[in-house]
Amino acid sequence: MSGCPYFEKRHLLFKNKPPTAEGEEDASQAGVNKASKGGIIYGEYLQLDKIVSAQVLQSELKGNKIHDEHLFIVTHQAYELWFKQILWELDSVRHIFITGCVRDERNMLKVNNRIHRIVMIFKLLVDQFSVLETMTALDFFDFREYLAPASGFQSLQFRILENKIGVPDNLRVPYNRRHYRDSFKGHDSEMLLATEQEPTLLKLVEEWLERTPGLEVDGFNFWERFEINIFDGLNKEKEQIEAMEDSEDKEEMMLELIKQKELFTSLFDEKRHDHLLSKGERRLSYKALQGALMIYFYREEPRFQVPFQLLTSLMDIDTLMTKWRYNHVCMVHRMIGSKAGTGGSSGYHYLRSTVSDRYKVFVDLFNLATFLVPRHWVPKLNPNIHKFLYMAEYCDSSYCSSEDSD
Amino acid sequence: MSGCPYFEKRHLLFKNKPPTAEGEEDASQAGVNKASKGGIIYGEYLQLDKIVSAQVLQSELKGNKIHDEHLFIVTHQAYELWFKQILWELDSVRHIFITGCVRDERNMLKVNNRIHRIVMIFKLLVDQFSVLETMTALDFFDFREYLAPASGFQSLQFRILENKIGVPDNLRVPYNRRHYRDSFKGHDSEMLLATEQEPTLLKLVEEWLERTPGLEVDGFNFWERFEINIFDGLNKEKEQIEAMEDSEDKEEMMLELIKQKELFTSLFDEKRHDHLLSKGERRLSYKALQGALMIYFYREEPRFQVPFQLLTSLMDIDTLMTKWRYNHVCMVHRMIGSKAGTGGSSGYHYLRSTVSDRYKVFVDLFNLATFLVPRHWVPKLNPNIHKFLYMAEYCDSSYCSSEDSD
Amino acid sequence: MSGCPYFEKRHLLFKNKPPTAEGEEDASQAGVNKASKGGIIYGEYLQLDKIVSAQVLQSELKGNKIHDEHLFIVTHQAYELWFKQILWELDSVRHIFITGCVRDERNMLKVNNRIHRIVMIFKLLVDQFSVLETMTALDFFDFREYLAPASGFQSLQFRILENKIGVPDNLRVPYNRRHYRDSFKGHDSEMLLATEQEPTLLKLVEEWLERTPGLEVDGFNFWERFEINIFDGLNKEKEQIEAMEDSEDKEEMMLELIKQKELFTSLFDEKRHDHLLSKGERRLSYKALQGALMIYFYREEPRFQVPFQLLTSLMDIDTLMTKWRYNHVCMVHRMIGSKAGTGGSSGYHYLRSTVSDRYKVFVDLFNLATFLVPRHWVPKLNPNIHKFLYMAEYCDSSYCSSEDSD
Amino acid sequence: MSGCPYFEKRHLLFKNKPPTAEGEEDASQAGVNKASKGGIIYGEYLQLDKIVSAQVLQSELKGNKIHDEHLFIVTHQAYELWFKQILWELDSVRHIFITGCVRDERNMLKVNNRIHRIVMIFKLLVDQFSVLETMTALDFFDFREYLAPASGFQSLQFRILENKIGVPDNLRVPYNRRHYRDSFKGHDSEMLLATEQEPTLLKLVEEWLERTPGLEVDGFNFWERFEINIFDGLNKEKEQIEAMEDSEDKEEMMLELIKQKELFTSLFDEKRHDHLLSKGERRLSYKALQGALMIYFYREEPRFQVPFQLLTSLMDIDTLMTKWRYNHVCMVHRMIGSKAGTGGSSGYHYLRSTVSDRYKVFVDLFNLATFLVPRHWVPKLNPNIHKFLYMAEYCDSSYCSSEDSD
Repeated sequence: MSGCPYFEKRHLLFKNKPPTAEGEEDASQAGVNKASKGGIIYGEYLQLDKIVSAQVLQSELKGNKIHDEHLFIVTHQAYELWFKQILWELDSVRHIFITGCVRDERNMLKVNNRIHRIVMIFKLLVDQFSVLETMTALDFFDFREYLAPASGFQSLQFRILENKIGVPDNLRVPYNRRHYRDSFKGHDSEMLLATEQEPTLLKLVEEWLERTPGLEVDGFNFWERFEINIFDGLNKEKEQIEAMEDSEDKEEMMLELIKQKELFTSLFDEKRHDHLLSKGERRLSYKALQGALMIYFYREEPRFQVPFQLLTSLMDIDTLMTKWRYNHVCMVHRMIGSKAGTGGSSGYHYLRSTVSDRYKVFVDLFNLATFLVPRHWVPKLNPNIHKFLYMAEYCDSSYCSSEDSD
Repeated sequence: MSGCPYFEKRHLLFKNKPPTAEGEEDASQAGVNKASKGGIIYGEYLQLDKIVSAQVLQSELKGNKIHDEHLFIVTHQAYELWFKQILWELDSVRHIFITGCVRDERNMLKVNNRIHRIVMIFKLLVDQFSVLETMTALDFFDFREYLAPASGFQSLQFRILENKIGVPDNLRVPYNRRHYRDSFKGHDSEMLLATEQEPTLLKLVEEWLERTPGLEVDGFNFWERFEINIFDGLNKEKEQIEAMEDSEDKEEMMLELIKQKELFTSLFDEKRHDHLLSKGERRLSYKALQGALMIYFYREEPRFQVPFQLLTSLMDIDTLMTKWRYNHVCMVHRMIGSKAGTGGSSGYHYLRSTVSDRYKVFVDLFNLATFLVPRHWVPKLNPNIHKFLYMAEYCDSSYCSSEDSD
Repeated sequence: MSGCPYFEKRHLLFKNKPPTAEGEEDASQAGVNKASKGGIIYGEYLQLDKIVSAQVLQSELKGNKIHDEHLFIVTHQAYELWFKQILWELDSVRHIFITGCVRDERNMLKVNNRIHRIVMIFKLLVDQFSVLETMTALDFFDFREYLAPASGFQSLQFRILENKIGVPDNLRVPYNRRHYRDSFKGHDSEMLLATEQEPTLLKLVEEWLERTPGLEVDGFNFWERFEINIFDGLNKEKEQIEAMEDSEDKEEMMLELIKQKELFTSLFDEKRHDHLLSKGERRLSYKALQGALMIYFYREEPRFQVPFQLLTSLMDIDTLMTKWRYNHVCMVHRMIGSKAGTGGSSGYHYLRSTVSDRYKVFVDLFNLATFLVPRHWVPKLNPNIHKFLYMAEYCDSSYCSSEDSD
Repeated sequence: MSGCPYFEKRHLLFKNKPPTAEGEEDASQAGVNKASKGGIIYGEYLQLDKIVSAQVLQSELKGNKIHDEHLFIVTHQAYELWFKQILWELDSVRHIFITGCVRDERNMLKVNNRIHRIVMIFKLLVDQFSVLETMTALDFFDFREYLAPASGFQSLQFRILENKIGVPDNLRVPYNRRHYRDSFKGHDSEMLLATEQEPTLLKLVEEWLERTPGLEVDGFNFWERFEINIFDGLNKEKEQIEAMEDSEDKEEMMLELIKQKELFTSLFDEKRHDHLLSKGERRLSYKALQGALMIYFYREEPRFQVPFQLLTSLMDIDTLMTKWRYNHVCMVHRMIGSKAGTGGSSGYHYLRSTVSDRYKVFVDLFNLATFLVPRHWVPKLNPNIHKFLYMAEYCDSSYCSSEDSD
């Protein structure tokens, strides 16, 4: 890897390593005396005294204990536990990108696994609604008055999560006509502001995509070749249609061809891209878009296999977050009809408006499907680039592979 | 409901009620000023300071932070949260049975819903393995040494749950050749002992089944009628077979008939039942078994509809607990191969032995399927009992319907 | 049950029964010679020659076999198999309603179980997307051109299913500016028209709800009592607020109260209801709405327990169909971006527009949650109605309980 | 790739390609006239006439139509549809291995994706039980007599699937004391025999693992280095323990160390491996085992990332098949208690015996977890092998990447 600017740091780490290594040997020995009285036990390890004592029913405090409030609390706590885990994975992945460790392609497996883990957690969170749905509207009505003004909208971790993935401030649906951050105070509000200013997963992926090997103008120059191939292909099609006898079919085909041409013309129009960017309809830079499309088409090349999986997982996250929002909407509709939420929001209608492509951070990865072409239009790899795609880049240091660094 | 022995208690409760009722009105007014600054907010309500700060990595404490330990902790905490919820539901259902409120058949819906909720939670818990399975054996190896001697076996809540449902002490697989309670100390051990002595869900369901209307010997006398019908049916079959010409088929059919006769003879043999009970192969009393079978056959009678659902849900719990155990086994096999567990148990092999019908508390409800007969062998309801099954029993007091009582 | 107009039919059935009964005995004997050569075997029973030979790849026919087309075919066939099963259950339930057998309350268990089975199938169908999602956009692109003009929109069974549940013709989103039935020809189109004219599940449930015991004006007269209680309650609240000292809080509470009063005034305004009905914003008759609300509030009364479950399951179906639609949208977005569908529809955008409350058939059951009130506002049952709700109605004939009838 | 012995074949293919390419262009034009009358429509494409007409109820044929039999048929048909899809994927993967195309590492993505798709299908099949479980024992009893002697055991596709994955004939649990193939006749029996003789997925994966780069004795020689490191590590531990003061702890640690030494001694004992192989307790050759362990330890090296995913997916298949078997057992227990199955098997008890590690084809991949060691015991890659693991092998021909070849 060109650069690898972590030499000194690494050096330092190496100096710190020995005791850890010792520690490891000690610990593996510690494994021997399992039966002994020392060491940590399950309940302490998990701090269960905190976890299973944190269910205080507001209804009970107010002298009218409602059985189902316990479920309501536990479900939300389970959500927050998993949000914490998602943030843990997200931060570690962002760290790998931010420190440049992503350039050592050995780290792609780790990045991919952790993003995939987020996917699996979101799947669970979508399924988790089935438990809360065992509570009926009437059961909820019995205690919902006690909850005001608490509201799921105030979940700090969820807002942080959105920010860190890359939901942009200006595309958020306003909440009761106010900025989303107004629902938070003091330290929480500052934390939110801070996360808005950190590099988002979207931004980091964008930078990484911009470096996709094969995009170099003085190298394989994918984008130019791709443009040439497409318009060649379209022109050949045009000729074939023109050679047909006049008919309704011919006319339709010609109209379709014109639409296709317009579509692809728009793809290669950087100004239009920037315009869509400014409106929030696209999110990735023009160059990153090119990198993503390149990975789509050449995904079977060894260097692109795991990156391709990564792009797929990023779409999975978007899809699952949107399904989570939609399941939430469905549950709220059943629970409170079209009434306002406990936080005083317009409830059902507010939530419904968030099930929108505005909240799909990686919307460009979906929309790229619009620009697929037959495989024989895809530029053939020349021997140089081909070989290149069989060789991963790496940084032969322990810095990036050490757990401490993320 | 004949008896309703809760009058005085109820009287007391009524005296206590008014302030609660006031409270309700106050609270509903409190709902009005949602926008005001007062009241509880989301994070406080859920005590998130406790919940999301309870993840302390042993590997980090020991100077070798391993990323995946966080997942390990969160997953187990989520399990414990849900175990708490299951216990909450289980206790409320047991309370309804213990206080006799189950005799007011209005409470059957509540009992059934709460048992069904436990089913839904167990479904989630089975699915939840998919998240922990994103951790590989090598990832786990990196920190498992730090966990000793903590072990999932030490989950107090899970053992309590087993006890309260009705896993009997003497059918438990020993753990490292020691009594399961030896893994717990002081207060925990006492709590476990206490739950062994409380009425289990199994015991309470048994008592309830023994009262199934229609079993009365001086009434419909289901069991005697059923026995008569079965042996009449089998005799008629025998005659038909005997009338056939000699053939291999005839022989086979006769052998099968003899097997059937033996099977049903065993069903009506109370001594044999008690023998199986003593060996743990049956768990319900002879009378309760009769009640269950009666509900199976007459499930469409209005009074039996929800009870039938309840029996089904009880089997669901057994099935899901056994699937949970099996999924656990599968995961452990992948994580540690055939090595010992962190607690020093024989790991995989210990867990595998718990995936056994010994741990199916309601095994009798499954095995009753062995004794099904053609519908026309089922005793016809006489008009009296028929009408009776259209009228539910109730106790027209607020005692049993008030939330405070459970 | 008053009426029971099936006597003669039943008589006829009884005459037909004996051979069946004989058949049963024969068949149970047939069970004896399992090892013998006769009888049906698995593959024939399931007609697997048809089922597993029905995968013909268009891409292969056109000389360019694409591996993933097989998955595409199998997935859609699995969907259609399950649609058939849903229709089977739906028809049997509709039959029980249409024939009046639903008046025999023994049949409620059957109705409820079958509706619940539809729920479970839809859950599976929602999950089933995870398999098709293993196909990427590029894989799909490789063969999608061969499929034109076939389109999922042409699924006859799905349209029938929508019709039979009760999606009304006039609320459907147009498909390419044309009536949905225009996509079907000949026999298929006629079948669709026919199903539009049959009684829908919505209609049948409506009629059943209108007969909810307790609604009788000359009896318990729930609706009038309910109206009185609500406005009494609101007035008491008003007095309490007026007694407060002037403050911002007081003002807010008063505003909230006025909103509440308007809300409930609208509930008791039959003309407004009919107006909403005509616009498709409500779907149930005024009386049926009253019945549903009554079941909500008195769900623990024995006669209402299973009906309450049924209402819940009907909402489940709506919710799952809408989730199915939404998952479909998500998949399509990933597969084809914002391009047109294979059938030439506007694809993603068309599908997205169907994820709408317009397609929620039982939307009223959700919206009733808007009209919940504190339990002490719910009219107390007088002794007569109370007892009545403990006695189910039935029709003591074998007609309605025989399988042949549905 | 050394060899690439497909040149001539490929040449031939190239000659055949042009018309296909033409076909593609035509087809993309065909896409234009979607609205026209020509082309295939949905129902024809999916051969729905076959699929949705293949539900013939035996109970109806025998004059006693039982509603739930339809569900039974549809569920099994859905299983068979998915089995077909699994076989489709399995055959394509086996083809890639058999033809040697797996040596072109571009194909690893395809192999991995298809194996992962099988995983996703099995997940669905495990979940699918939830639908059939809506049928109760009594409902099943009503028609199960009509099914004899059909039995799920006779599912040809499932047996083929087991054979192709690699369930060995001699480890199968006998079925009614007879060879499993005796349940099939004529063509089916021959097909089964044929699949027993084809290379199984297990065998193909074994061969592939044996070629893992880094195993070469005259190269990196992983196995020897690994053995040296382990025993060095264990000796160092021994010294540390010996240096401790005498205590109970010291004794325990020494005992544990001796156990560890025995464990690893067994790992490097090829004769013992062959003995375990002959007993069926191991399934992979000694060399393949080494390859798998190497991939475990160096999974982050670019060439090993996707292979590592593949090993994980193979375990997933084993796990899910075993869960499928277990869910089947649970359902059967509920349906028929401890009675015999429709095919005359011992039912529950037969099925339970198949939930065994005997049926885990890739059991070695699980058990390797037993042999994990601290990361610093893993041999460091020397610069040569390190670089090598960054360069994938490929065969730059279109043969292996063309769809026709699989």
